[in-house]
Amino acid sequence: MFVEKLSRTGFQASELAKAVEVMRKMRGDRNCKVFLAFTANLIASGLRGVIAQAVRERLADAVITTGGAVDHDLIKSFKPYLQGSFFADDVALRKRGVNRLGNLLIPNDCYALLENKIQPLLEKAYNKNKVVSSKELIESIARTISDRNSFLKACFEKRVPVFCPNLIDSAIGLQIFMFKQDHRNFALDETNEMFALGRIVLQSKKTGAIVLGGGVAKHFTIGANILRGGLDYAVYFTTATPFDGSLSGAATNEGQSWGKLASRARHVTVYGDATILFPLALSAVI
Amino acid sequence: MFVEKLSRTGFQASELAKAVEVMRKMRGDRNCKVFLAFTANLIASGLRGVIAQAVRERLADAVITTGGAVDHDLIKSFKPYLQGSFFADDVALRKRGVNRLGNLLIPNDCYALLENKIQPLLEKAYNKNKVVSSKELIESIARTISDRNSFLKACFEKRVPVFCPNLIDSAIGLQIFMFKQDHRNFALDETNEMFALGRIVLQSKKTGAIVLGGGVAKHFTIGANILRGGLDYAVYFTTATPFDGSLSGAATNEGQSWGKLASRARHVTVYGDATILFPLALSAVI
Amino acid sequence: MFVEKLSRTGFQASELAKAVEVMRKMRGDRNCKVFLAFTANLIASGLRGVIAQAVRERLADAVITTGGAVDHDLIKSFKPYLQGSFFADDVALRKRGVNRLGNLLIPNDCYALLENKIQPLLEKAYNKNKVVSSKELIESIARTISDRNSFLKACFEKRVPVFCPNLIDSAIGLQIFMFKQDHRNFALDETNEMFALGRIVLQSKKTGAIVLGGGVAKHFTIGANILRGGLDYAVYFTTATPFDGSLSGAATNEGQSWGKLASRARHVTVYGDATILFPLALSAVI
Amino acid sequence: MFVEKLSRTGFQASELAKAVEVMRKMRGDRNCKVFLAFTANLIASGLRGVIAQAVRERLADAVITTGGAVDHDLIKSFKPYLQGSFFADDVALRKRGVNRLGNLLIPNDCYALLENKIQPLLEKAYNKNKVVSSKELIESIARTISDRNSFLKACFEKRVPVFCPNLIDSAIGLQIFMFKQDHRNFALDETNEMFALGRIVLQSKKTGAIVLGGGVAKHFTIGANILRGGLDYAVYFTTATPFDGSLSGAATNEGQSWGKLASRARHVTVYGDATILFPLALSAVI
Repeated sequence: MFVEKLSRTGFQASELAKAVEVMRKMRGDRNCKVFLAFTANLIASGLRGVIAQAVRERLADAVITTGGAVDHDLIKSFKPYLQGSFFADDVALRKRGVNRLGNLLIPNDCYALLENKIQPLLEKAYNKNKVVSSKELIESIARTISDRNSFLKACFEKRVPVFCPNLIDSAIGLQIFMFKQDHRNFALDETNEMFALGRIVLQSKKTGAIVLGGGVAKHFTIGANILRGGLDYAVYFTTATPFDGSLSGAATNEGQSWGKLASRARHVTVYGDATILFPLALSAVI
Repeated sequence: MFVEKLSRTGFQASELAKAVEVMRKMRGDRNCKVFLAFTANLIASGLRGVIAQAVRERLADAVITTGGAVDHDLIKSFKPYLQGSFFADDVALRKRGVNRLGNLLIPNDCYALLENKIQPLLEKAYNKNKVVSSKELIESIARTISDRNSFLKACFEKRVPVFCPNLIDSAIGLQIFMFKQDHRNFALDETNEMFALGRIVLQSKKTGAIVLGGGVAKHFTIGANILRGGLDYAVYFTTATPFDGSLSGAATNEGQSWGKLASRARHVTVYGDATILFPLALSAVI
Repeated sequence: MFVEKLSRTGFQASELAKAVEVMRKMRGDRNCKVFLAFTANLIASGLRGVIAQAVRERLADAVITTGGAVDHDLIKSFKPYLQGSFFADDVALRKRGVNRLGNLLIPNDCYALLENKIQPLLEKAYNKNKVVSSKELIESIARTISDRNSFLKACFEKRVPVFCPNLIDSAIGLQIFMFKQDHRNFALDETNEMFALGRIVLQSKKTGAIVLGGGVAKHFTIGANILRGGLDYAVYFTTATPFDGSLSGAATNEGQSWGKLASRARHVTVYGDATILFPLALSAVI
Repeated sequence: MFVEKLSRTGFQASELAKAVEVMRKMRGDRNCKVFLAFTANLIASGLRGVIAQAVRERLADAVITTGGAVDHDLIKSFKPYLQGSFFADDVALRKRGVNRLGNLLIPNDCYALLENKIQPLLEKAYNKNKVVSSKELIESIARTISDRNSFLKACFEKRVPVFCPNLIDSAIGLQIFMFKQDHRNFALDETNEMFALGRIVLQSKKTGAIVLGGGVAKHFTIGANILRGGLDYAVYFTTATPFDGSLSGAATNEGQSWGKLASRARHVTVYGDATILFPLALSAVI
């Protein structure tokens, strides 16, 4: 097997093999609830389908992500993104109405589609209750999706909760800005998120986390696990390095000082691009 | 002058010199509102005082940051953090009750202090209105601070708004979790944030951004500027690279395809640690 | 197939798929001579066997590497290296007589073995001619090896020349220092290397390069190709980024300005750890 | 003082302040011989003059660098390089006869100049002795230079030896290729380099190293110090990270396991671009 060979190679190859081992342990441990955290760009990429698969394969008991992931998942359920180049001429793309995200291209009409989908959902949620939770809004979005590669749909089907503590910081946030022009008392509450996530953390016998990338999704996941003295299993896949003191760059061991990871936790940090590393690891785990 | 010499050096030295030039332009342009965005770790570091100074020197008309920045600013107003090492033994630190953030050390009693400060403020805000905005909460925190190195205090004094779209994702968020146990209808609304930031963006003749690091603070700042067709000036200081397609790693040019930066914008991305680069640039600008 | 799926993913996954495509083209092009360049650390790792396999599979018409690669290949032909941790206590390792290379461990007796192997070879070469070429020395080393995972042995068997323009900068270099104490007119000539490599470049109808990592091996390979107006195919696997102006971080496109790559060249730079990326790519190519 | 403030900041700011402290110690220690190592790209940049100044200020007792540094130093003594952009169109630059090195531009006629300068020096050296040492060749180049920003000239004036274990891997190497067409028994010996450097290492009571970047210059410097049980002081400035197991990315602590640094050594690794960090540190040290 490919990953078994990697285990004897060294450098990131052997770290990846360790990650597979820790992922197998957390999956095989019946007492363990697994959190799958990822950044929005991964949903803009084709990793979206792999993440949906991971949810279906019961690798995730909860998903934590950022507002942009919801944007991209909704849009890509209806329109594909295109392959481009990291070295494109961005001013020229602007003229053509194309947005660049690394080496992916997102035509402007994707965001027109988003507007058409989101405004009625905001209206409906608002009519039910002026204070809307991100959970409700995300579920209402998931209901509109039938694409099998959608992680929102997979989570909805498998009753896996989706936490998104910064939904406002997204294209949906811009839609809320517009909606709020005429509905000034509309409010989006995030405290239910913290509350619900905290409950899962406190009620689980063990917890594990698979973290793809950094930022809010990573921090919300590991921060909540302070409530129980830390994760029992943790695997980070990252391109960020520890030397700037950022949360995104913090390796698993740093989390042990905080009680984000337990002192006895099985853990590993793998350096590299999740679009390659996560499907490799997942195929070895399943 | 040091920075003038750098302009003739090449590599990141000359990029830094360009950043100083763009920062001078946005500061000198009377029509331009400047957004200063930064990650939480920078407030945990001694850069906090430099950021407070930048606010006092009128380099920022609005500040955008993450929940952790509010945590650290509040705590450091009352207790110092300590210098440590990137290579510390984290399990040993845990036993000693010390949390590590890169090469900084934060004793556990800092978070006891936070609890004592925050719970009464939550109580007070809740008694006024069940739906609390992050703006109100942040201002109530700022009122308790007298430390001159506090960016919250500097912003409060200079009437510079502080936007924090993910306040729930922080130690304050954990306090909200606890508060919510007995106050189940407490809600924290973030839509006013988007609304207020959107208004500034739309009402400004020109806008500029100085972005230290990535994540939510960066995205909320540049995302909001889509509303007006993009920033006129932008300077990023970053340790992240573009090749993973992350928002944190996206350079200024990528933003031009989205209209986050205008096609005609003056812009530069400088690669390096903001704790060195930003004070260097600031001292050259002022 | 795994790599085919990656091609539709984006970010480094799709760049890796492009790399496979370019590698297939250069392998399938009968007129093309392929240079395989790599850094020494990769020979210290288990990638050594994969590189030997690539040579046997006729993916390389010439190999370019650094002095350390010859050290590690010789030693590992007789003694294994051990798996360790990136976070080991290096002062404690020193006391135990163990050298750390990332997460690999190399006991001191490996270098005693090197001494025993190299000194007689230096003596023999010196007795033949005071001015020894690195080619002769490397071939005399290859003759002593029977390990199938050795790239030196694979190259020797397949008559693939090995270029090593800085053999002196290695553990073998330290042995030469000792040998030279009593043989002051011993000389190691590297100009034959340049000469022989230049001849291959000039006499080939087309050339391609697969470059793992940076430094001397990369520069010698692409620098020599200036002689013919540039490589026709080039794939870099790298963890270095372009923004410090280093040769190690220079992407394939930069090489086009120099004529290190032809303007019409098929080329791609993949960001990530070669211990994972190269075996993935190789298995897709073969 | 700027650097004193940095010492209380954290992250790379406080690491830089530690670097200044270690550099002051090694400079103030009369028993200590200091090695200054750097990569070629830094000589292509304006840091060249700063390095020449460091030599004149007696911060370096020996200099270790790569072949490209000699190329750039010679050319820049007669012709300036230009400022460009990291995002230039390289195929267009090729048509205009301009080579790009990060954000620096080097017109082709620079290399015509190099040819005119080098060929007579090769002829002269060859006529004296068929086996030329890189030391001789480098000194003959230094004699032709009068530019005060040249590190070769500064070293020559201050009798600071310049070690270059891979001179063949450079534009000068290409000139040797051409010269060798008609002078087949021309040889370039590097063993005297190793021998002379080894002597300095063994005869010094203490040694220190300031290492800018990675590759051969770094390895040759720290590798030679194994002969005496390791450096007493070491400061690395680097953009490479440890997790790929490369020598370029190895931090100072890894060197302690090898005896490249002594177990008791004062040492620090600073992450960032040397074009900013080194002049900052140097101005604080002097």
